[in-house]
Amino acid sequence: MQLSHRITHLLGDGDDGWGVFYRARAMKAAGRDVVELTIGEHDIRTDPVILEAMHAAARAGHTGYASIPGIPALRDAVAARVQAQSGVPTTRANVQIMPGGQAALFAAHHATGDPGDSALYVEPAYVTYPGVLRALGLVPCPVAADPEDGFQPRAADLAAAVRAAHRPRSLLINSPNNPTGGVYDAATLDGIARVVRDHDLWLISDEVYDTQVWEGAHLSPRALPGMAERTLVIGSMSKSHAMTGSRVGWVVGPEAAVARLADLATHTTYGVPGFVQEAALFALAQGDALEVQVAAPFLRRRALALDLLARQNIVRVQPPQGAMYLMLDIRATGMTGEDFALALLETHGIAVMPGESFGAAAAGHLRVAMTVADEVFVGALARLLEFAAEQAARAA
Amino acid sequence: MQLSHRITHLLGDGDDGWGVFYRARAMKAAGRDVVELTIGEHDIRTDPVILEAMHAAARAGHTGYASIPGIPALRDAVAARVQAQSGVPTTRANVQIMPGGQAALFAAHHATGDPGDSALYVEPAYVTYPGVLRALGLVPCPVAADPEDGFQPRAADLAAAVRAAHRPRSLLINSPNNPTGGVYDAATLDGIARVVRDHDLWLISDEVYDTQVWEGAHLSPRALPGMAERTLVIGSMSKSHAMTGSRVGWVVGPEAAVARLADLATHTTYGVPGFVQEAALFALAQGDALEVQVAAPFLRRRALALDLLARQNIVRVQPPQGAMYLMLDIRATGMTGEDFALALLETHGIAVMPGESFGAAAAGHLRVAMTVADEVFVGALARLLEFAAEQAARAA
Repeated sequence: MQLSHRITHLLGDGDDGWGVFYRARAMKAAGRDVVELTIGEHDIRTDPVILEAMHAAARAGHTGYASIPGIPALRDAVAARVQAQSGVPTTRANVQIMPGGQAALFAAHHATGDPGDSALYVEPAYVTYPGVLRALGLVPCPVAADPEDGFQPRAADLAAAVRAAHRPRSLLINSPNNPTGGVYDAATLDGIARVVRDHDLWLISDEVYDTQVWEGAHLSPRALPGMAERTLVIGSMSKSHAMTGSRVGWVVGPEAAVARLADLATHTTYGVPGFVQEAALFALAQGDALEVQVAAPFLRRRALALDLLARQNIVRVQPPQGAMYLMLDIRATGMTGEDFALALLETHGIAVMPGESFGAAAAGHLRVAMTVADEVFVGALARLLEFAAEQAARAA
Repeated sequence: MQLSHRITHLLGDGDDGWGVFYRARAMKAAGRDVVELTIGEHDIRTDPVILEAMHAAARAGHTGYASIPGIPALRDAVAARVQAQSGVPTTRANVQIMPGGQAALFAAHHATGDPGDSALYVEPAYVTYPGVLRALGLVPCPVAADPEDGFQPRAADLAAAVRAAHRPRSLLINSPNNPTGGVYDAATLDGIARVVRDHDLWLISDEVYDTQVWEGAHLSPRALPGMAERTLVIGSMSKSHAMTGSRVGWVVGPEAAVARLADLATHTTYGVPGFVQEAALFALAQGDALEVQVAAPFLRRRALALDLLARQNIVRVQPPQGAMYLMLDIRATGMTGEDFALALLETHGIAVMPGESFGAAAAGHLRVAMTVADEVFVGALARLLEFAAEQAARAA
């Protein structure tokens, strides 16, 4: 039986960018020892105090259908958090609770474009972005950000891409950035906001790494002049509170848009478990301390990594300003990211993501997730650097 | 800022069918005493033993990203359950775990039609069906089932609707049925299967009430000749196990379709919490006993209701063969379902759903959810019948 075009073409050319990841999983299943530095998942679990709050809520009877926009107390807590971070007045009417950041991304793009419209995004980009757009019948328009610019997009490139696009409706950005670790500075964000305003676009701002900032500060573009009315912010408890598996996130935006997102949620997901929402509410109420604690391993490993990297000159890195990844430039080896990653996996049992998985803009790079215990991480990175040196010597 | 056409037109004419429900909630919020017989939610909560299993799974570390097609053990359990019920060989490769039946309905329609294609469904229908189709850019094609046929659709009517439709791709049915309480018999299902096969359609079979059958037997159309390859079954833990708030359900279908649904899930919801899946696995392992216990109150109230209804001759009913609702025919009052429901709410503080909320086919009817304690339910139904008698006398 024939399936829809939109689902059979969701992955584009059929390569979903996870080839090395799947190969690593297969090797592990076959009994090989593999260090996985592929996915953005903490090596700690959700804090037991959060799980106790969830269980207490469930036992107290929060097991029925929950309010579809989200329970009022959680919407209030998210609004307060976003307002405190950004300075933009925000109430529960600006908040739609969603079952995770991925669902929020999907909903935000559903709300802002129709089939055949164009949706822009900055590359390198998180692996699911183009698939979200294709699933929704939108035309994916990547805009390359250059490694030499610290992977921050140039306003002129964005404007040119908008002009070249058919019915452009939205621009998706992500700062702090996965996979590059970049945090957009004020000049970059001003340029983005200008293009978005000039061309009457929606800005979809994926800010799920907003608690993991190692240099500079997280700036939300929703706070820029004229932007609150045209920005949908994607947020999540996954990265900030090590609650990846709980699937709880949100969209923050103009009231009228949020009201429509509730209609959509009624027809797509029918809300988020009440006990999960109560757990998120409890976690947010713990304040910064818990977020700092969850982020600490990445800050620590970042320092260990930069120390190792400083001792050699084959692999280059722009120190990550945020998030839980290193973006390594291995172009001095003469290899593509993909060839390097596959060879590293086969010879050393170390799995990292090829830069190409995140778009052509990251060719010749590797994304290394800092998501294993310090000593394992340092050992794997040291072997990676040795391997790179060998490859570079061979190429020379 | 302009939103997409698909989200702003999701509700069609803007009336989402929940007017009486919202009015009842507003009256309650204002301090009025209201008996709500509107939504399909048990008056019991999720069994504490299931909640303990969920908590144990969370504490054991199932708090990270879970496998997106679903954890293998749950997929196996669902496959075994579906195979035992239907006799159709089913493995985990036929099962995609979803965050609830609503998400499963959305995904099944995404997978089977593209924007501009037509999707058929039988009316009276669950309130979200047409919105799901509009959200996906599909053309909703309702096919009316007649009260005089026990709301079972005629094959000739289905065939005529298919022929009249532009690029028809799927037919959505729901047995046991919400709102009518009907359970499709073998002749109805054979007719449906014939039309679906003859016109090379997908059948999307919403079977979320499959454990609540009071007369006859639940038959899955996936078991009919040539249907396993073109049927997507929607299932859920919500109704069978009083786990409405846990948001866990599934799509069962051909392997190739299920593989694509995993791609879609990666881009829309990114899986279901592992601890929720473990709770569902535990609940399914309890076998029939728990399902019978969860269903028992509806069977008991059904008997109480039929007893009351037999003592008068204004309001007519076809005894529900399944699910948790009574569909009452109040045409003898001369009122529409909507006028009756609003008047009943204002004068007696009893909230029921107008038949019109489920499509024109149920005009002059009311859907009464049997979801409050027996004595409250009987008292409210008795007042409803008295009110109907007064209205009929006035009209005469």
